[in-house]
Amino acid sequence: VPPHPSASTLRVAAAQIPNVVGDLEGNARRIGDAMAWAEDQLADVVVFPELALTGYPLADLSAREDFVDRAGEVLADLARRAGRTAAVVSTVSRVPPRRSWDTRERSVAIGAAVLCDGEVRGVYHKVLLPNYEIFDEARNFAHGDRPGLVWRIGDAIAGIAICEDLWSGDGPPERQSAGGARILLVPNASPFHREKPTGRLELAAQVARRNGTPVVYVNCVGGQDELVFDGGSLVVDADGELLHRAPQFAADRFVLDVPLGRGRPVHEPACTVHTRPARERDPLPRPEPVAPPSDDEQVWDALVLGTRDFVRRNGGTTVALGLSGGIDAAVTAAVAADALGPEQVLGLAMPGPDTAPEELEDARELAELLGIRFAAVPLRRPTAILADELAGVLEGDLDDRASGALEARMRAAIIWAACDQLHALPLATGNKSELSIGSATLHGDMAGAFAPLKDCRKTLLHRLARLRNARGPAIPERILDRTPDELPTDSDGSGPAYADVDAIVERYVEQGRTVEELVAAGFDESVVRGVLQLVDDAELERRQMPPGVRITARAFGQDLRMPITHAWRPFEAEQAEIAVDVPTLVNVS
Amino acid sequence: VPPHPSASTLRVAAAQIPNVVGDLEGNARRIGDAMAWAEDQLADVVVFPELALTGYPLADLSAREDFVDRAGEVLADLARRAGRTAAVVSTVSRVPPRRSWDTRERSVAIGAAVLCDGEVRGVYHKVLLPNYEIFDEARNFAHGDRPGLVWRIGDAIAGIAICEDLWSGDGPPERQSAGGARILLVPNASPFHREKPTGRLELAAQVARRNGTPVVYVNCVGGQDELVFDGGSLVVDADGELLHRAPQFAADRFVLDVPLGRGRPVHEPACTVHTRPARERDPLPRPEPVAPPSDDEQVWDALVLGTRDFVRRNGGTTVALGLSGGIDAAVTAAVAADALGPEQVLGLAMPGPDTAPEELEDARELAELLGIRFAAVPLRRPTAILADELAGVLEGDLDDRASGALEARMRAAIIWAACDQLHALPLATGNKSELSIGSATLHGDMAGAFAPLKDCRKTLLHRLARLRNARGPAIPERILDRTPDELPTDSDGSGPAYADVDAIVERYVEQGRTVEELVAAGFDESVVRGVLQLVDDAELERRQMPPGVRITARAFGQDLRMPITHAWRPFEAEQAEIAVDVPTLVNVS
Repeated sequence: VPPHPSASTLRVAAAQIPNVVGDLEGNARRIGDAMAWAEDQLADVVVFPELALTGYPLADLSAREDFVDRAGEVLADLARRAGRTAAVVSTVSRVPPRRSWDTRERSVAIGAAVLCDGEVRGVYHKVLLPNYEIFDEARNFAHGDRPGLVWRIGDAIAGIAICEDLWSGDGPPERQSAGGARILLVPNASPFHREKPTGRLELAAQVARRNGTPVVYVNCVGGQDELVFDGGSLVVDADGELLHRAPQFAADRFVLDVPLGRGRPVHEPACTVHTRPARERDPLPRPEPVAPPSDDEQVWDALVLGTRDFVRRNGGTTVALGLSGGIDAAVTAAVAADALGPEQVLGLAMPGPDTAPEELEDARELAELLGIRFAAVPLRRPTAILADELAGVLEGDLDDRASGALEARMRAAIIWAACDQLHALPLATGNKSELSIGSATLHGDMAGAFAPLKDCRKTLLHRLARLRNARGPAIPERILDRTPDELPTDSDGSGPAYADVDAIVERYVEQGRTVEELVAAGFDESVVRGVLQLVDDAELERRQMPPGVRITARAFGQDLRMPITHAWRPFEAEQAEIAVDVPTLVNVS
Repeated sequence: VPPHPSASTLRVAAAQIPNVVGDLEGNARRIGDAMAWAEDQLADVVVFPELALTGYPLADLSAREDFVDRAGEVLADLARRAGRTAAVVSTVSRVPPRRSWDTRERSVAIGAAVLCDGEVRGVYHKVLLPNYEIFDEARNFAHGDRPGLVWRIGDAIAGIAICEDLWSGDGPPERQSAGGARILLVPNASPFHREKPTGRLELAAQVARRNGTPVVYVNCVGGQDELVFDGGSLVVDADGELLHRAPQFAADRFVLDVPLGRGRPVHEPACTVHTRPARERDPLPRPEPVAPPSDDEQVWDALVLGTRDFVRRNGGTTVALGLSGGIDAAVTAAVAADALGPEQVLGLAMPGPDTAPEELEDARELAELLGIRFAAVPLRRPTAILADELAGVLEGDLDDRASGALEARMRAAIIWAACDQLHALPLATGNKSELSIGSATLHGDMAGAFAPLKDCRKTLLHRLARLRNARGPAIPERILDRTPDELPTDSDGSGPAYADVDAIVERYVEQGRTVEELVAAGFDESVVRGVLQLVDDAELERRQMPPGVRITARAFGQDLRMPITHAWRPFEAEQAEIAVDVPTLVNVS
């Protein structure tokens, strides 16, 4: 290897593709297509997202020996098809068993294989394994032990780092740049939340400036359970200036002549991909970067993509949901219509004893505006019969809470029955504010296969509704008017205002503020403690919530793992004696 | 510190107490009581379980700053009450921020504080942080960096290691023993599964023999969400011989004069707890060790304790469940009766159109034998009304699958309504075999706040029923006869036999065998692949299952984290076009 390979630019192609978890054949087909395209572009290298071959996150699939074996076979097939354009294909990769933070040996790493001229030229192994928020990588993966590895690609020296590797400030990119790398190729699987896209650009620019090395950041795209990978791949030059940004929430390919960082001696061991000089070719015009949409538009796009991919990738095309005449159901229906096409959405109105006629009318108008299918199933008679039977057995009428919950569960049973019959998936309409304090009914309005608004606070829903209406009439104004934007008080005065709930949950649960800090910021201590008690108590119900689209850095579920049984505030269950008057051995005919 | 402190025995007390997650005040009260008792016993040291002060597992509670602050205050209070008997109290403990496997700094460790003479003498920090199966410790905790720390307690040198620290073969116990420790004090939070109790004794004996050091292994007891901590604390001498074993599934205290390992020079830095010589006292009689119950008895005890603690610690006293006349409901009812007292259990029979009269009779007889409360709510009329209304909307009668599921969900709605009214918790009756292949109905027979049999395979239920009947009549023979022990074929021939499902799930999912290995062992390949496809597809439903008692090393949930959306076998969802004939804009009155 000459000490100063002499290229001044590297032609880099990037494939922002969906990584479908476990779909080795489908992922390999998408990768192979992009490899052939990059070859046509005379690219020096084509970069794919993190675990492009296997999908991300794998959870415990990576512990299945036959899955890892099969991934190896599929990678070997791809390598045989590799030509002169080096392909950076990330996949699971076996390493010698190693122990680190516990007593368990791990022998599978997250790798980035470099394919060229029909062969696998080498594999980089991810060094830093995120194990916080939604990430679990220290569970199944071994860490890489060659952070400084660099790659000779013709006349250029490149470094390869994977996702988390990029962010430590003294990790693989720093080692590789000091060791000779003049460009960093970085496969990522970086899930969306509201603050993520801005953060990525800032951090990539910092890494580039710190090391004097351009950064090619390639992300995947698509919904995977609760996560939405939003793409938005980007390239910054050695000064940290943005050279290109790909669109979000859509598959994309781009190719770019990237000016390399300054020449430097090669100190680290280099793996040779090939030694041919650069091909004769005309410089490429710089592609037009895409301006990112507004924050709320990004959220909307995330909800739509997350819902579409959940339904389709689980074998469905059609969904059904209950239309109550409220804003939660309206926004859920609009998301579903955008995700799947309005003709694939069935809205069911299920008027109960307390349903006002205008609520039914609003539901019907919503369905008409969206163009979704609509039907109504009256609930009064069957609910009344069941309530009567129960009253006989329980020796007293159901109280308001119990009869409201019974109605919600009857509605869920009806939606599920329609879905079972129609091979559709039911959508739950609950939002994050309700989930926070347990005001949704478990197995009632929280029932469904997927809950698009699970991570959207009540106070966000109005903004989303207005945003969607600006694109075309969707949600009747009367639905928006019925619940004011600011929610100054709870409608019936029986609980905390959603605006308080949202503000307290954001600060305490998402940002880790203490009660003292909240009180210092002007919140009433008794309201704060009351809301937090509700939040803790609601974990029992939240644990059984359907998956939904994550849009914040702290979604309930994988981001916020709380015990159900807990007593952070004083625990008196042993003293609790709930008076229950249960009948014994009632006879029935 | 003299190089060879001269004691020959250490009087060790152990407190096998419940660690209630988050219950700092309650845990401190239990710890303080045991400290006073140990003082009365003239013990040199009293050892508590891992995270005895905070509870275990904490999940993201350990990331709450005010929780960690408060734990520190409570520990300081306990220290002020400490006398001459050193107390090893494990709690969360702040350390300087450190980074290890990812870019995130962590500043809270799992500590074992040593309290004596009114002060905290020092804190050991757990070095090895398990991050596999149900364990997540690398998520929130910093690892300790002083594995060799030893403690002078009067004339003796002791090592302290915490749980996972014990098992690596070259970890803290080895460093501490080589560095001077003549006894190892080991706080644990070790959850039960069938193979665990035997494994613990074998491993503790290995550690003792390898190092020539006795091991005092103290475990906690009680149910925490899906986990049951079974106690079974034990002491082995320096030759690995069992000196004492505490009972399982019950709180316990014991005190023992433990012969120390051979004297050795002190190489490691020693923290001095106190330097007083041993007190004058008569040797203690050796307590009688408890013979462990049989495997199936342990499972029964785990189900009972896990169910009791889930209900009580979540503020409940009473449960309700559906009684179908089948074995799942029967065993669930028996567990609940043993856990909470029969008078706190309400069994609801809800006969539907296809319920045979003898099934209702069996349910009633079960309730009588167990002495639980019993009522029946007929389902026929309300279900028929709903099915009629749906048939009108969907332009056709519900098919068998949809109408069966509707019935299951109506039953769930009834049980929940009774529970809402009576302030009771509903129990789900589903078992692991059904969960494996998705044959239970989501929000139907899978609905509930807790599912005691979630980790029990169908083929285990008969053994459990017979075990329980041997203690006193509980489950009518006709219920046992109706489903044969071996389940050679599925009752209606429409699916795989449960015996096959159980055998395949055990080998593939729990033991990580490959399809090839299963075929080589004699399984039919098409049956294997069919069952595995069902297992993968059922993750969508399993994700919303209530928590239940873990009794195997691979329970669905925290042990087996599978993606819902996946396509490990070929993925063709994009091609799927499910024919749906949904009505548009049906008008209703």
